Amino acid sequence: MRIEIICTGDEVLFGHIINSNSALIARKLEDHGLAVSSAHTLGDETDELIEAFRQLGGTADAVIVTGGLGPTQDDLTRQAAAKAAQVELELDTRWLQRMERMFGLRGREMTENNRVQAMLPRGSEIIDNPIGTACGFGMDIGGTRFFFAPGVPRELDLMLDKEIIPRLKTLSRAKGDPPAVVITKRFNSFGLAESQVDSLLSGLEKTSGECTVKIGYRADYPLLETKLVARAASSPEATRELMAVEREVRNRLGNYIVSEDGQTLEDVVRELLATQGESLALAEEFTSGHIAGRLGRGGESEAFLTRATVAPSLYELFRAFNLNPERLTPAESTPPPARMFHTGQQAAEQKPHRPAGMLEVAPAPGVARTIAKAARDESGASLGLAVLGTLELEAHQAGHPQPGEESTYSIQLAIATRQKTLTRTARLRGDFERVRMGAVEMALDCLRRHLKGLPLREKTHLEK
Amino acid sequence: MRIEIICTGDEVLFGHIINSNSALIARKLEDHGLAVSSAHTLGDETDELIEAFRQLGGTADAVIVTGGLGPTQDDLTRQAAAKAAQVELELDTRWLQRMERMFGLRGREMTENNRVQAMLPRGSEIIDNPIGTACGFGMDIGGTRFFFAPGVPRELDLMLDKEIIPRLKTLSRAKGDPPAVVITKRFNSFGLAESQVDSLLSGLEKTSGECTVKIGYRADYPLLETKLVARAASSPEATRELMAVEREVRNRLGNYIVSEDGQTLEDVVRELLATQGESLALAEEFTSGHIAGRLGRGGESEAFLTRATVAPSLYELFRAFNLNPERLTPAESTPPPARMFHTGQQAAEQKPHRPAGMLEVAPAPGVARTIAKAARDESGASLGLAVLGTLELEAHQAGHPQPGEESTYSIQLAIATRQKTLTRTARLRGDFERVRMGAVEMALDCLRRHLKGLPLREKTHLEK
Repeated sequence: MRIEIICTGDEVLFGHIINSNSALIARKLEDHGLAVSSAHTLGDETDELIEAFRQLGGTADAVIVTGGLGPTQDDLTRQAAAKAAQVELELDTRWLQRMERMFGLRGREMTENNRVQAMLPRGSEIIDNPIGTACGFGMDIGGTRFFFAPGVPRELDLMLDKEIIPRLKTLSRAKGDPPAVVITKRFNSFGLAESQVDSLLSGLEKTSGECTVKIGYRADYPLLETKLVARAASSPEATRELMAVEREVRNRLGNYIVSEDGQTLEDVVRELLATQGESLALAEEFTSGHIAGRLGRGGESEAFLTRATVAPSLYELFRAFNLNPERLTPAESTPPPARMFHTGQQAAEQKPHRPAGMLEVAPAPGVARTIAKAARDESGASLGLAVLGTLELEAHQAGHPQPGEESTYSIQLAIATRQKTLTRTARLRGDFERVRMGAVEMALDCLRRHLKGLPLREKTHLEK
Repeated sequence: MRIEIICTGDEVLFGHIINSNSALIARKLEDHGLAVSSAHTLGDETDELIEAFRQLGGTADAVIVTGGLGPTQDDLTRQAAAKAAQVELELDTRWLQRMERMFGLRGREMTENNRVQAMLPRGSEIIDNPIGTACGFGMDIGGTRFFFAPGVPRELDLMLDKEIIPRLKTLSRAKGDPPAVVITKRFNSFGLAESQVDSLLSGLEKTSGECTVKIGYRADYPLLETKLVARAASSPEATRELMAVEREVRNRLGNYIVSEDGQTLEDVVRELLATQGESLALAEEFTSGHIAGRLGRGGESEAFLTRATVAPSLYELFRAFNLNPERLTPAESTPPPARMFHTGQQAAEQKPHRPAGMLEVAPAPGVARTIAKAARDESGASLGLAVLGTLELEAHQAGHPQPGEESTYSIQLAIATRQKTLTRTARLRGDFERVRMGAVEMALDCLRRHLKGLPLREKTHLEK
């Protein structure tokens, strides 16, 4: 069955917002064993819309159209659909009443232009929108079934799951496509490149026959998503085939799997801390509070994240924990220099405060341990985690890297428990923001590994 | 001139990656006074590509095609282009030599399948790629000028600026479109809804005549981008018209403008702290370290962000600053309850530790002041900022809100200076993540306003 997507709206066409709806629809279709043939983006021009609907009306089996169902002058989809099918728009009183009820609940007045959202092409079928004022509708144009939905991602998401995909599956069967049950499983991994995972999982795909299990990858830096899609005539068959491949993927990817399906790595770490009755104090230098930001949900008084201390240098971090900065070597204790920032022209005008030619030196491993222990002791938490990072300046670099410039960073991480302190070091290359993201993920992964009794030190593909 | 975009590749069509190239191209075209008519996404299917090239070859003036120029079996664009134009592919020896040189410089071996990247449709013009192995090419198909470029965003970006857009502008003039200079200006604002800004700026657009200045909006929650696009026959004219509108936008939007063009609000705050010789200590409860994350660039020893302390509750925040938690009222000092988290099924199984029916109470205003002062005093910074947040539980809510559930949060913010402490409170409604983002932006905006001597308290559209 040939399925096409049309996303409408000037803001999408002209790039004012990124088109996430097209990808959302395509991924959901894929999860149900349906494939999109091509996707199109159109602006707010009635003639363009009518022309596109008529053209696809001749060639596709089904078309999903998003956007243009709001109450303003730029919302032209329903008028274009009616014209393309050569029918009139009529008022749907049930939807009008639904809208009146929704506005009433929100304590808001429904304006005259909202009424247009209850005007539907004659003969079309309403497609319910459980949370918004724009209902969708289904209708035939030129022998092709069209499904119209709002462009608001949350509403589209719900309507796809509850209304549109079930209708597409019915249509697919009616057109003679063999019935299929599709089940998916996702694994998120950290530390392996796509090519390595592809290599490790070679031979596992089952691409021919009545029951298939396909493997696909999606980069989601710093993680990689490995998706298994099993398709068979019946549910028990699909489940059986999927679980066999799943088992083998777990064997082969082992400790590199950080989470599954919709879970995030921080979900997993929170769960481990909670079930093991552990609490955590963070000391962040390089990662600027991003680990605390990922783990915390502030205001919910969660016991497991006791405290995070963030400082811009080792010097300030030592001060924050009442440690004597004189314990640091001269290279480690570079006091905060004259202020620097990288916005526009100022970047060119600022001079680094660093003596020419002096290289940054990564602190001795004992420094991260000391800080992790201090964070733990001072807060009363059961675990302390410290993350430090140092720029390895290259000869040609006069000072701090420019935004986007690639450099090598030395990351040092320590986890202090009651009995011992574990450490992990890594050298990561990239621009600052990217390396920081990698360091945050690595820190969360080390927490996960520690709490699960796995080795911290398994070399990742990010490292030099 | 009718310009169309085609992005190719299964990974884009099936939603494995988001299509950012389409938006990139459209925005660049807009900045040069050119408009895209529609955009399309196709998969790795030669027949589909040929059909699309032939179809657009009949209707568009120019088409930009991205992707499919790599060395693998899935890269089908050059073959499809040649077939659509009914010409052969021939080896371009200059590009072959360029590729050999590039591989040599990287110390890598060029493989046999890389050679295909030097095969171009006969009669096509090379479009240089300064940083990658796939050159682009330009050719006519059915009377329409096609520009083919790789899908790698960084390469596409450079080739658009240096090669493709200049060619499009030449083509545009050849087709009789009047020559135009286009200059843009962007303002980012916080606290005004799009409808309010639209209302404030009414009458400013100049949409007819030889010189136009158009105003467009782009939501970038929690900020709003207002973009001015001036178009005239000459640069002095465009500049003059743009500056007149710019002046009026500044007058009308006033203190709500937080940054301009590519600057972020944290860029602005860093700059103000630096130029005014101020340093900052943060105490984050509700915002979980996200303010520190936005302001800090860790490892660069910046003097202005001295320290951030993050804690999950008032109780822990008081402990962190050695303040006596007994100073808190019983309602304020709810000790950390049994652990809670919201991942999947666990959410349903967890019971809140809160006595049934008890409402959260926002702390007395003095509490935020106390914490801001303590953060400042303890760290030695010249400014302290504390951000607290409380969930206002509604009768039907048994405990913490589910992910995505809308609730009302009471945010309290205090800035402590040497002489005084300023406060700002707000009630924000939404799901937790969204409210947290709004609170972080509000805190950064309050810092900006304080440092610029502007009032903290100007009601925003986000507030109830």
